[in-house]
Parts: sequence; structure tokens; C-alpha cells
Amino acid sequence: GHSRIDVDRRARTGDPEVVFGSGKTPEQVVEILRTLHAAHPDTAVLATRLSPEALDHVAAELADADVDRVARTAVLGALPAPRGLVRVVAAGTSDGPVAAEAAVTIRVHGAGVERVDDVGVAGIHRLMAVADRLADADCLVVVAGMEGALPSVVAGLVGVPLVGVPTSVGYGTGAGGLAAVLSMLNSCAPGVVVVNVDNGYGAGVHAARVARA
Amino acid sequence: GHSRIDVDRRARTGDPEVVFGSGKTPEQVVEILRTLHAAHPDTAVLATRLSPEALDHVAAELADADVDRVARTAVLGALPAPRGLVRVVAAGTSDGPVAAEAAVTIRVHGAGVERVDDVGVAGIHRLMAVADRLADADCLVVVAGMEGALPSVVAGLVGVPLVGVPTSVGYGTGAGGLAAVLSMLNSCAPGVVVVNVDNGYGAGVHAARVARA
Amino acid sequence: GHSRIDVDRRARTGDPEVVFGSGKTPEQVVEILRTLHAAHPDTAVLATRLSPEALDHVAAELADADVDRVARTAVLGALPAPRGLVRVVAAGTSDGPVAAEAAVTIRVHGAGVERVDDVGVAGIHRLMAVADRLADADCLVVVAGMEGALPSVVAGLVGVPLVGVPTSVGYGTGAGGLAAVLSMLNSCAPGVVVVNVDNGYGAGVHAARVARA
Amino acid sequence: GHSRIDVDRRARTGDPEVVFGSGKTPEQVVEILRTLHAAHPDTAVLATRLSPEALDHVAAELADADVDRVARTAVLGALPAPRGLVRVVAAGTSDGPVAAEAAVTIRVHGAGVERVDDVGVAGIHRLMAVADRLADADCLVVVAGMEGALPSVVAGLVGVPLVGVPTSVGYGTGAGGLAAVLSMLNSCAPGVVVVNVDNGYGAGVHAARVARA
Amino acid sequence: GHSRIDVDRRARTGDPEVVFGSGKTPEQVVEILRTLHAAHPDTAVLATRLSPEALDHVAAELADADVDRVARTAVLGALPAPRGLVRVVAAGTSDGPVAAEAAVTIRVHGAGVERVDDVGVAGIHRLMAVADRLADADCLVVVAGMEGALPSVVAGLVGVPLVGVPTSVGYGTGAGGLAAVLSMLNSCAPGVVVVNVDNGYGAGVHAARVARA
Amino acid sequence: GHSRIDVDRRARTGDPEVVFGSGKTPEQVVEILRTLHAAHPDTAVLATRLSPEALDHVAAELADADVDRVARTAVLGALPAPRGLVRVVAAGTSDGPVAAEAAVTIRVHGAGVERVDDVGVAGIHRLMAVADRLADADCLVVVAGMEGALPSVVAGLVGVPLVGVPTSVGYGTGAGGLAAVLSMLNSCAPGVVVVNVDNGYGAGVHAARVARA
Amino acid sequence: GHSRIDVDRRARTGDPEVVFGSGKTPEQVVEILRTLHAAHPDTAVLATRLSPEALDHVAAELADADVDRVARTAVLGALPAPRGLVRVVAAGTSDGPVAAEAAVTIRVHGAGVERVDDVGVAGIHRLMAVADRLADADCLVVVAGMEGALPSVVAGLVGVPLVGVPTSVGYGTGAGGLAAVLSMLNSCAPGVVVVNVDNGYGAGVHAARVARA
Amino acid sequence: GHSRIDVDRRARTGDPEVVFGSGKTPEQVVEILRTLHAAHPDTAVLATRLSPEALDHVAAELADADVDRVARTAVLGALPAPRGLVRVVAAGTSDGPVAAEAAVTIRVHGAGVERVDDVGVAGIHRLMAVADRLADADCLVVVAGMEGALPSVVAGLVGVPLVGVPTSVGYGTGAGGLAAVLSMLNSCAPGVVVVNVDNGYGAGVHAARVARA
Ligand SMILES: Nc1ncnc2c1ncn2[C@@H]1O[C@H](COP(=O)(O)O)[C@@H](O)[C@H]1O
Ligand SMILES: Nc1ncnc2c1ncn2[C@@H]1O[C@H](COP(=O)(O)O)[C@@H](O)[C@H]1O
Ligand SMILES: Nc1ncnc2c1ncn2[C@@H]1O[C@H](COP(=O)(O)O)[C@@H](O)[C@H]1O
Ligand SMILES: Nc1ncnc2c1ncn2[C@@H]1O[C@H](COP(=O)(O)O)[C@@H](O)[C@H]1O
Ligand SMILES: [Mg+2]
Ligand SMILES: [Mg+2]
Ligand SMILES: [Mg+2]
Ligand SMILES: [Mg+2]
Ligand SMILES: [Mg+2]
Ligand SMILES: [Mg+2]
Ligand SMILES: [Mg+2]
Ligand SMILES: [Mg+2]
Repeated sequence: GHSRIDVDRRARTGDPEVVFGSGKTPEQVVEILRTLHAAHPDTAVLATRLSPEALDHVAAELADADVDRVARTAVLGALPAPRGLVRVVAAGTSDGPVAAEAAVTIRVHGAGVERVDDVGVAGIHRLMAVADRLADADCLVVVAGMEGALPSVVAGLVGVPLVGVPTSVGYGTGAGGLAAVLSMLNSCAPGVVVVNVDNGYGAGVHAARVARA
Repeated sequence: GHSRIDVDRRARTGDPEVVFGSGKTPEQVVEILRTLHAAHPDTAVLATRLSPEALDHVAAELADADVDRVARTAVLGALPAPRGLVRVVAAGTSDGPVAAEAAVTIRVHGAGVERVDDVGVAGIHRLMAVADRLADADCLVVVAGMEGALPSVVAGLVGVPLVGVPTSVGYGTGAGGLAAVLSMLNSCAPGVVVVNVDNGYGAGVHAARVARA
Repeated sequence: GHSRIDVDRRARTGDPEVVFGSGKTPEQVVEILRTLHAAHPDTAVLATRLSPEALDHVAAELADADVDRVARTAVLGALPAPRGLVRVVAAGTSDGPVAAEAAVTIRVHGAGVERVDDVGVAGIHRLMAVADRLADADCLVVVAGMEGALPSVVAGLVGVPLVGVPTSVGYGTGAGGLAAVLSMLNSCAPGVVVVNVDNGYGAGVHAARVARA
Repeated sequence: GHSRIDVDRRARTGDPEVVFGSGKTPEQVVEILRTLHAAHPDTAVLATRLSPEALDHVAAELADADVDRVARTAVLGALPAPRGLVRVVAAGTSDGPVAAEAAVTIRVHGAGVERVDDVGVAGIHRLMAVADRLADADCLVVVAGMEGALPSVVAGLVGVPLVGVPTSVGYGTGAGGLAAVLSMLNSCAPGVVVVNVDNGYGAGVHAARVARA
Repeated sequence: GHSRIDVDRRARTGDPEVVFGSGKTPEQVVEILRTLHAAHPDTAVLATRLSPEALDHVAAELADADVDRVARTAVLGALPAPRGLVRVVAAGTSDGPVAAEAAVTIRVHGAGVERVDDVGVAGIHRLMAVADRLADADCLVVVAGMEGALPSVVAGLVGVPLVGVPTSVGYGTGAGGLAAVLSMLNSCAPGVVVVNVDNGYGAGVHAARVARA
Repeated sequence: GHSRIDVDRRARTGDPEVVFGSGKTPEQVVEILRTLHAAHPDTAVLATRLSPEALDHVAAELADADVDRVARTAVLGALPAPRGLVRVVAAGTSDGPVAAEAAVTIRVHGAGVERVDDVGVAGIHRLMAVADRLADADCLVVVAGMEGALPSVVAGLVGVPLVGVPTSVGYGTGAGGLAAVLSMLNSCAPGVVVVNVDNGYGAGVHAARVARA
Repeated sequence: GHSRIDVDRRARTGDPEVVFGSGKTPEQVVEILRTLHAAHPDTAVLATRLSPEALDHVAAELADADVDRVARTAVLGALPAPRGLVRVVAAGTSDGPVAAEAAVTIRVHGAGVERVDDVGVAGIHRLMAVADRLADADCLVVVAGMEGALPSVVAGLVGVPLVGVPTSVGYGTGAGGLAAVLSMLNSCAPGVVVVNVDNGYGAGVHAARVARA
Repeated sequence: GHSRIDVDRRARTGDPEVVFGSGKTPEQVVEILRTLHAAHPDTAVLATRLSPEALDHVAAELADADVDRVARTAVLGALPAPRGLVRVVAAGTSDGPVAAEAAVTIRVHGAGVERVDDVGVAGIHRLMAVADRLADADCLVVVAGMEGALPSVVAGLVGVPLVGVPTSVGYGTGAGGLAAVLSMLNSCAPGVVVVNVDNGYGAGVHAARVARA
């Protein structure tokens, strides 16, 4: 690959290798995945933010890679055994890709993961119906766009460490996820922490570290 | 009073006279209330956003005025008979003054009003416990600061017309009510309408018109 | 459809089923409309924010659907009898699609609707000429872009409950509707309530609830 | 005075001397006024944005000065004969100080001036009643806070050159005059030009130049 | 045309008919120009913000129209005799289209116009060299992007009424013209008035009214 | 106390009782602390954001309370035994109060805590010298104002779960903590999660939950 | 002093010791100055952003300190011999304190300094008159508020390295220095570099390093 | 070329001719380069921000031009002998094009240049490993996107004059480079100066002037 890899940092932090696909050509993505996999044959390598073309190229060139078209990710190499459990909770269907990116990231970073979908705050009964499943996780990743209210409600239900992920789902004054990220930063429920808009990857890294500890 | 009153508009709209106390001296407030009351002896006159000094001066000078120190309002003249019912729902104690301004406004504008307090989204069970009382109102005014999520949750529970009032309760990225007003404008629950930050008065006018129809 | 429908919420609120077309394929839109119509054969199902391709696909596949290319909506199933009347008032031609979305939403949600177009504030005589028609409605939806001043003027003419809808019509410092939404939130006319930029649907839901009560 | 005066520029532009009082001590204001008046005994010198203390000090020290406590201005020296007429139109009582600053500035800069007050857009009949007086001016200065809609309506009534002055009257999302300045910049009426928030002085300079030409 | 024309307003203001081409099809533009020209055969009709396709279509269909591909305008009908003179001053080549829109608008609205180009503030000697030509105009329109400093410098040189037009020329923190519009609103030179970003049309309307008076 | 306590939520989440002192009188703070302590004699009760007057009043009235004038907190009741260890890392002296609020919160919420101060990024050797102490914690809370860069550097050194706390230390374009909160949300180091500006309390709740698990 | 001094960094960079007075008590400022001076008897120690009380206390307690009430600085210890020359150019009187902070900083950091005041862009002849003095400096620091245009004009006159310092002088849309900092970042003159609003200190450090090289 | 070149300014400042390619056609770029080169045969002419098409056209038409596809630049004519040394330090691979634009600009403006890549703050050991190379430059240009923290860390290591260049690398709340530019303006390390987002050219001009002095 053309990028000087910070091998030391990854050794220090215990994280797997990750390729940020945004702005890379399909050929670059495949080449970096191959190189990193050769250097780390025992651990999974993750690529995120892949374009449709990059997803196709990875699928064609790397038969062993696990390609997820919703999450826009590819994983090469054996997944670590899951330690602990993170539940990824999503408000609506449109939040699915970000939730999927978080879920893949969590597994690659060594924790177990389960999804809880379609529990947006406008239908609070759906959320109450799954409250028990929220309380038994080691960490929660809660994904929501629009007004981004879901983390506040979930954090009021259970005392599990919780990461809010605002998504760019929205329009008008909410375009780009600004309303959602401000909502989550100002949650009236204690202990909600937040990542950048659409950053399922960052939430997943944090959640996996918490859950596998 | 020094301000030329738009008597025609008030005749057209059917609204009572209202004095916006912000930036007026205690003497001006008392004088305008007196003048308007003399001109409209049969209907209540409302003053809002009164400073502590103005509240004192009204209480001292206008024995018949009904002064509310939390709402920062004064009412002079007989209240109209209540038609219909508006419930004013507030998330937290700090949202109280805005909820109180809305409640007084609603009564002066001819509708009945009841308060539902301390049902913020971080303790969703409290809200569920009063869901029945929310459904039987003609209109709801829902007041919340911080992330302003309460209107979304309430609007998902009942199909009653609902006005969200963001408050300036918050700090950091939420200072001034920006997070709350963006949240409410971007509610994922259909039919939430919004007024300016801390504008209990405006929400009350709209709700009273809806309820008394 | 792939999305878990919140059937309970719709039962609670009395609203019809609605499909938010943004981000859905033409095939998904048709499939969801079909499924919801089968489940609710007696009430109309509404789809909004449809792409040209989705509008074509609905027209081709669902012969009974009522497709509106300006409003970008499709309706499947019999409309409810209209109760009450909402007038949708629009400032300029460019605001037409948002006004149309509001109008369709209102009818599907059970109220009657009439349009008043091209009454922008730069030609105030046009508005004065229709003032009578504004006063006899049960609710007004007032749509305007650019500086979004129309709701203030209308709210000064009549005491009818009024929802302002800012549109994204504008450029430079007004791009995206920011000037219009701020204008409406800061209206000097009492009782103006506001929805998100271009949210004709949200305004329509609120107005229909008010009018049909 | 401690400030090096740009005598050349004033000669070039034909404007009178002006002292911007903001951030100057009462003593500095008096001293500069005295010095400028001595240097230009035949023309009026204007001071704006004076604090209450500076207004007192000028009144006490400069018996010939014309002090306006609402406009927060002082004028020393004989006013020029008025050429042409500017009307200063204001929406509400709270906009009075800015309208007054514009009016004083206009007279000092050589044009005649008349005020039209309390014609805010929420009571449009008041504005229509004075439409004739608007059409016969050489230039209009239109002052409004909150949503700042008044310039659009006035510019739709008459073809006179018109300067909008947004004021900082407002709260919440309108605090500081942001809603008003954006409104005026995005006016749907052609030919509206705008100055900074509360800048009655700047509007007055431009209007006087237009009117006296 | 599909849009209800506000004939009364145009009679009141003395302005010619103008078509805002943004968002209209080439066919609509041609049709509206034709209709307006038939109704007003003695005065020029102006169309602005025309797409390349609309410009082509107008050129092909309306042989008498005067099409300006830089200004993106078309004019149909005889221009009025020029009264007074406006100089349109532009900072850089990229500001040319906005300056051209202003110039065409000025001529159609009845004033004479001349251009002064390439006098940006980074080469102040170029501006000084033309100072005389600036002082003899009845009004100046000063167009600049990036930091938008040109109006301040020009307004310090001459006392002619001056309208600043910020352009969207810029990138990074200046993208969309925000830096330029803020600069002009905050000019330290007295009497600078401002229009929306890229609004050569609005500046032209105001300047023509001033110059032809 | 006048506020309806959400006892259920606290039971569900396992968190102690907390009083948010902002906007409460000294008398209210003392009364609520007393009531909560009586209801929960076995666990510590925490009050945050206390004014100097409230700190004095608590110290005078509640002899057993532990008052921290830097953190602006008071604790009443026995602290829980510490489980796990959180290190609170602060960039500069001015960030001290926020770091102190986080530290007190962590102890009250059941984890152990140690401080690492004065390791801002402009003196990176100081940080490198304590790298070992960073790696052995169960969770890190990293507090920084100005450009808020410290969390990125720390997160590149160790793989421990890390919460960034932006502070309002800064001026000009950084006033209010905007630069710091944006920095942390956009960290190029994976896994950084963020709370609101100055929200040491929120970071502490999250970190304690992570550490004590 | 209570703050752990980063002695190493200062050794590495060759800069003198500096105390940031904002938020420190007069006693703390005096104590830190004394301690640093004792540790570095041969070089000057600088304190900035001192309150009036701190300036008084330093003057009373440290007879050898050089206190500048406009710059709000104190210097203790012998100034280094000046190498090279920086000219600090300021637009208006109100920009004086920031220009003074820059000038003091430059001298303490080892370069010579001269001031050029009152050369704002609205009176461009004043600036042209001193153009020669601008060209012979080793570095320029250009200070301006309002629209912050001065650096663009100066950078077009000379090819000397130039640092722009936006000040918070302004109001309305320019309050806090936003217009000025955006202007400078978007300068159309090549090579303008910028520091934070009012950061005369930062500009001075950079300029001294450039000049003394 | 169609643009009037400010030959005088370039003579005054000693800078080479530069063509800003943004918004120019390939043909215009080639023509201007040719004309300028003919006028200045002894010095290099630089073109920046070239589109792929313009790069191709320059390569095809001007055989002697030095085209850099990463920097998006072309240089025609002999480079000046390098005086002094600027090091361009970049955080990540995505920042490469901006770093390359800076490097080319520096050489064309007469200084020597060397690159230091891939030393982002999340892997601080990489930066420490090259600290010596940073200290021996005459000026540093430090390029970083995302949270833009790199200039703070570098400025804490060495006392060399340093220009920070924020890049638009980022997404969500960091889109467009806002987080990075705010970070750099608020650096806690003294003496960091900043240019506009992605403005490698501006940073290069300043750095070359500093280094070659
Ligand atoms: N979806 C993502 N969002 C933010 N950062 C990411 C994402 N995916 C990967 N990264 C980061 O990007 C780094 C790799 O960048 P690169 O060397 O350009 O491939 C990884 O170490 C991650 O920290
Ligand atoms: N709390 C409030 N917020 C916003 N507008 C208000 C408020 N109270 C009164 N008003 C408006 O202010 C008008 C009276 O303003 P004034 O004539 O200045 O007293 C009333 O007609 C209301 O429309
Ligand atoms: N370039 C422009 N910018 C802003 N408004 C314009 C422009 N050109 C025309 N207009 C306005 O648009 C109106 C016509 O719009 P329409 O009725 O949509 O054709 C004219 O009367 C002008 O007020
Ligand atoms: N006026 C100023 N603006 C910004 N930073 C400053 C200023 N004065 C001093 N500093 C910085 O503050 C540091 C000292 O901070 P402290 O240890 O809190 O006194 C110095 O090393 C400078 O980098
Ligand atoms: Mg949501
Ligand atoms: Mg709340
Ligand atoms: Mg409009
Ligand atoms: Mg107004
Ligand atoms: Mg310019
Ligand atoms: Mg810091
Ligand atoms: Mg200035
Ligand atoms: Mg970076």
C-alpha cells in the first residue's frame, strides 16, 4: 500500500488493522487488505466505507473476504472469539447501514454483537417490549437520526455503558445530522457518550473495548 | 401607553390584549395594563415576561391583578369561561416557568388547562403512567429543554394536536436552546409543530385556539 | 416490506399508514403500499417524497393509486370523508410542491382542503383580496420560502390556528431554508407554529388533526 | 482626541464628522466633539452610541449640543438645510432607538426626515393606511426586529429606494438579530438593501446620500 | 405562464417585468417572456438566472431577445432611455457573471451603466487609478467575493451611494459567500448597504432607482 | 424538595442519587440532599454545579458532607468501595474544575479514580513520561479545552476505553468550547467518545460504569 | 505557582516564560512571575491578559516590572537585544489593546517592534502614505476588527511575511470577531496567515521568530 | 488572457506569477501560462487547482511544463535557486494533495522544500522519531484534516515559525474542514498561524517568504 502503516500504535492498543476506504480506489483497497492480511495472517483485517465498486472488486479478488453491502465493509481473516456482548440498537430502517458498520466493527474488535432494530422513540411500546434485552448487554450502541432521541430514552431504562451514534438521516434543519448530534450531546439521561455523525466504526471500537474487558 | 395599540388586529383575531413586558419599565407595564383594562373591562388583559420589579409594582398598584411569579405574568380582568382542555406537559423542574407562561396564556385565551410535570424522557415510566391523561386533551403543549426529546415520545403515544416548546435549559453545545429547537423541528413523530425557544406564550395562543374551536 | 411497521402507534393515534419514500427503491415503495393496503383495505395509504422513478413505478404497477407528480405522492385506497376545512396558502410558484404535499396529506388524514396560491408578501394586495377566505377555515397551513414572511402577515389578519412551513426556496444566505425557518420561529404575530423546512407532510398531519376535531 | 482623524476622507465624501461613542469615555466624547466642532464650526458634528453617562456629560459640558436619549446621539453645530425626504418606518416600539439613530443621522447628513411608527406586519392594516406617505419619499429606511418582514411588504407597495435595518429585538433563535438580517437579505421583494443589525447610522448615511442627490 | 403575475405591484413600483429563471424549464421561460412582452410591448422584459439550455431556447425562439451568456440573462423589448449613471465595480474575473447580471438589470430598470473591472483590493493601485471615475457616478454597485473587502475601500474614496454585492467566489471557510457577506455588513466605511450573495439583480434594481431619480 | 424524584429509574440503572445544583437555591440544595440521604442512608448522594453560596450553605448545614470547592460538588453519605480504576487526564490548569467534577462523580459511582494533570499536547514529553500510567487503567477520561487535541494523542498511545471531555476554556473562535468539542468528535484516533462541553459529570458516570464492570 | 511549568518545551523552542493571566488571581500572577523570574533571572518573563486588579497588584508588589495598562501585560526582567524589525499595523483606535499585546510580546521574544496606527481601509490614503515603512520590515502584524480588510490591502502592497490578527471590535453580525477572522482567512492577497480573534500574543510569537531569524 | 494582470503588485512583492485554475477552462489555463511565460521568460510561472482536463491539456500543449497530478499544479519556466528550507509535514495520506500544493508553491517562490508524511497525532511515536528534522527547518508547514491537532503537537516540540493548513478531510461535524480550522486557530501551543481550509498555496507563499529571508 502507499500509506505508511502505524504498526506500533496497533501493537500498543491491541486493535486489529483497519482500512478507511473513503477516497481509495478499488485496487488500493484490495492491495492494502492483501498486504495487511499477509502481515497479520492470524487476525481479521477490516475495511470500511467501501464504494460499490470497491465492494465488487474485493468480492472478485479476495474469495475469502466477507463482504457486507449494507455495512459497506469487508473482512479478511478469521474473526476473534467473541468476549462479552454489545447490543446495537437502531431507531429506523434508514439508520441500518450505520448500525451494520458498528456491528461488523464490534465483532472484528473481539466482542459479540446482536442487533435490535426499528425501536424509534415515536413508537415507544416497541422499545419497552425489548427492555430486558437491553439490560443484559455489556455495552449498548444506540443509533438514531432525525432528532436523535433514542439514546436518552434507552439510557433512562438501563445502567449499561451506552454510546450514541447520530446519523445523517434527516433533511432541512436536520440535514447532515446536526440535530441528532446536538441532541445526544445534550441528553438529559446521565452517561450518554457520543461519536461523530455516521461513525458506526468509532462507536464499535469503543464498545468492543468495553465489552471484552 | 406609549405604544400605538393595533386594536383592529385584536378584533379580527378574537384574541385578548397582551403586553410584552420585556424592555418595559414597571411604570409602563402598570400604565398599559390599566389603560387596556379600562378599554376592555369585560375581558382579561395579560402581561408576560415581567421583571421581578414589574411583578412587585403590578402587585402593589393593581390590587385586582393576578400575579404569577413563576410564569412572570400578570392578568387583569375576569378570565373567560374555559372551552376545551389543553394539557401542558413539562420534562423537568427547570422547564417550569415556560410551562407556567403557556398555562396562563391558555386560560386567558379561553381554553381550560391542566399541568403534567416531571415526565422527562430519561424516566419513561413516569410518562407511560400518565398516557391516558394525554390522550383525552384537545391539544397538548409539550415543554422540554436539553435534547428536547419529549414531544417525539408523546406524539408517538397519542394523536392529539401537539405543540413543542423548546426551552433554553441547557449548557455547552445546548446553551440557548439550540439543541432542543432542532430536535423538535426534526421529530420523527408526525405532526409535531414548534415555537421559538422559551415561547410558552406563542404555544399557548395556538393551543387555546385549537382547543376552544 | 423490510421495515417492522409500528401498527400499535397508528392504532393509538388514529392516523393512516404513511410510507416515507426518500431512500427507498421504486420496488420497495410499491411492495410496501401493496402490503399496507391489503392490511387496511378500508383506509387510504399515503406515500410521500417519491422519486420520478418511484412515481412511474407506482403508476404502472398500482392502477388504483392516485399519483401526484407535483406533490411527489401516491395514495392507495379510498379517501376518508372530509371533516372540517384546512386552507393551504402558498407565497410563490416555487413553493408549490410543498403546498401540494401538505394538501394531499390533509385529505388523507381526514380533513377537507383548499389551496390559495401566489399570495407572497411582496404583493400584499393579492393577499388582502382573499382575506375572507382565510378567516373561515378551521386551520391554515402557510407555505413560504425566501424570507418566509407570509405566516406573520396572515396571522395578523385572522385568529385561525396557523402552521408555517418554511421551504428551501432561496439561495446565498437563504439556501436550504434557514432564513425562512428562523423568520417563522420569530414571527411577531402571536400563535404561529412551525415545522421543519419543506415538511408539508408534518404540517398537514397537524392541520388535519386540528380541523377534523 | 487620541484618534487620528481621517480629515481627507470626509472631504472626499462630503460627509460630516461623526464620533462612534461605543467604547469611549464620557470625557473622550466631549473632547472629540469640542475639537471637531472647533475645526468645522459651520457644519454639525454627530456622536452616536453614547452611554447614559456620556449623554449626561455632553449635556452638562456642551450647552449647545442637541442630545437625544432615545437615539443615544448628540449633535453639535447647525444642521444643514434639508434636501429631499427620507421616511423612517419602524415595526414596533422596541425598534424605536434604532429608528431614532437613523433619523438623526439623516438630518445631520443633509436630508429631511419623517418617522412612521408602529406599522409591524402583524397588523397590516396600519401599514396600508399609510401607503401614500411611503410612496412620496425619496428613500425609505425600514426598521424591524423579530422576523424582520416589514421591508418585504413595504418594497412590494412602492418603488422607492429602500434600506432595511434589522434590529436585535428578539430572543431564542432570533437573539442578536440573526433572523431579521437573514430575512431582509432574502427578501422576495426586489431592490431591498440591508445594513448590519442595529445599524441605523449606516442606513441613515446611505439614505441621506440618495435623498439629497 | 402558470404563475399568477402580480400586475398591480409592478404598476405601483414602476419596475419592468422580470422572470426569475431558476427552476423554470426553457419552454416556460420562453412562454412567460412572450406573454409578458405581448402585454407590455413598450417596455423591456428581463429574464435572469437562465440555464444554458434556457439561453439556447430563448435565442432560438425569440429572435429579438438580447441574450447575455455571461450574465445568464435575456431581454425582450426596447430598453428605456438611460437616466443617470451607475458604475458596476468588480474585484476579480470570477465576479464577472454577478457584475454582468447587475449591469443588465440596471439598464432594463432605466439607468445608464458602465463597468469597472479587475480592481480587487490586493492590487490597490489599480483602484486608485480609477478613483475619479468612481466619484462621478450617481450610484455604485461593488461586487466582490473571497473576503469581500472592496466596498469598504471604495466607500472610503467617494461619497456616492454604494451597494455591495458579495459573491459565492471562495472556498473552505469562505464557501458560499459567507465571509464576503459578513465583511460587507460589517464595513468600517459608512453607508455601505448590502444584498444577498450573488444577487446582482437586487443590487441593480436598487441602484437604478437611485440613479434615475 | 419540589421535584418529583424518578426513584424507579435510579433503581433500574444502579446509579446513586444526584442533584444538579444549577438554578437551585442553597436552601433547595440542602433540603434535597437531606431528603435523599434520609431515603438512602447507605449510599452517597452527590450534588454538582453548586454556586459558592450553595457550597457555603451545605458546609454550614450538613457537617458530614464532603464539599469540594474546585469541583463545585458536595457528597453526603459513605462512598462505595472502589471497583476498577479510572484515570482522569487533564491538559491544563484551567481544565481542573471539570476534571475534578469527573473525579468526584467516578468515586460516587463506585469506581476508583486517579488524576494525571498538566499533560497538554503543547508539551508532549510530559505526556510520554506518564504513558505507562495511562495503559493500566480500566477507562480514561481526558479533559481539554482550546483545540481539545489531547484525547487524540492519548487514544493513539493506549487501547483503553476513553471518554473525551471538551471544556469551555478558550476565547474568540474557541469561546464556549466549540473548537474542542468538534475536535474530539473528529478525532483521527479510533474509539474516542465525547460528552457535552464541561460535562465532567456525564463522562464520570460512563467511565465508572465501564471500570466497575 | 500551582501550575506545573513545561520547562522542557521552553528550552526546546527558545521562547521566554509566559503567564496567561486570564482566570488567575492577582496573587497567583505575582507569585508565578516571581518564581519564574527567580528561575530565569537573565531573561524577561511576560504576563498577558491581566485584569485591572492584577495590573495594580503587580505594579505594587514587583517594583521592577514593566506594566502596560493598554496591552494588559507585565514584563519582569531585562528585555533581550532586538534582532530584526516587526511593524504592528492597526486599523483603528479600538484595535489598540490587541496591537499593544502583540508589540510587547514581540519585544519580549527578541525582535524589535514599531507601531503604525489608524490606517484603516476606509481611509486608504493614510495607508498609502506609509507604504514605504511597511516594505522595510522583516515581518508585519496587521490588526483589524469589523470587516478585517486591512491585511488584504497591506499584503497587496508589500511581499513581507504578514500575520493578520482579527479583533472582536464589531457588533451585530460581526460581534465576537467572526466577520474579521473569516475575512482574513479568505484574503484574496496571497500569503496572509491568521491567528485567533484578539490573539495579539500568538501573532507576536510568530512574528518575532520570523524577524529574529 | 481575459484577465487584467496586476503586474505592479507582483513587482512590488517579488512573487512569481500564479494562475488560479479553479473555474478556468483548459484552454484559458494554457493561454495564460503561455502569455505569462513569454512576459517573464526568466522566472517560473505557477498554475494551481487544475482540473484533470486542464492538467492533460497543459501536458499536451506545453512540453516544458512540469505537471504534478497530485498537487494539481503546473510550472512553466526555470525554478529559482532554493534559499532556506521549509519542511511540509502532513498527518495522513488524504492530506497529500494539499501538502503537495504547498511544496510546489514553496519551490516556485524561491525556497527549498522537503516533505515529512504520515506523522498524524494518533501515532505520536512516528512524529517523535522525526523531531530532529523538524527543528532544523527555517519554517514548517503542517497539514492536517479531521481534528487538525498536528500543528499543536509540532509547535510544542520546536520553536521554528509554523503555518497550520487545515484540510477538508473529514465527515459529519468535520465536513468541509471546520473542525480542523477551529482547532488550529485555538492551538494551545504559542505561535501557530493558520490559512484557509485546503490552502496549501497560501501557506507556501508565507513559508517561502520566511525561509528565503
Ligand atoms: N468508518 C470509519 N470512520 C472513521 N475512521 C475510520 C473508519 N474506518 C477506519 N477508520 C480509521 O482510519 C484508519 C485507517 O486509515 P487509512 O490508513 O487511511 O486506511 C484506521 O486506523 C481507523 O482509525
Ligand atoms: N412572552 C411573549 N413572547 C413573545 N411574544 C409575546 C409575548 N408576550 C406578548 N407577546 C406579543 O407582544 C405583543 C405586545 O407587544 P407590546 O405592544 O410591545 O406589549 C402581543 O400582542 C403579543 O403578540
Ligand atoms: N436574480 C434574481 N434574484 C432574486 N430575485 C429575482 C432575480 N431575478 C428576478 N427576481 C425576482 O423574481 C420575480 C419574478 O419571479 P417569478 O414570478 O417566479 O417569475 C421578479 O419580480 C423579481 O422580483
Ligand atoms: N494572550 C494570550 N493568548 C493566548 N495564549 C496565551 C496568551 N498569553 C499566554 N498564552 C499562553 O499561555 C501559556 C501559559 O499558560 P499558563 O501556564 O496557564 O499561564 C503560555 O505558554 C502561552 O502559550
Ligand atoms: Mg430517530
Ligand atoms: Mg428534556
Ligand atoms: Mg416568501
Ligand atoms: Mg418585525
Ligand atoms: Mg475580493
Ligand atoms: Mg488543550
Ligand atoms: Mg477594520
Ligand atoms: Mg489529523
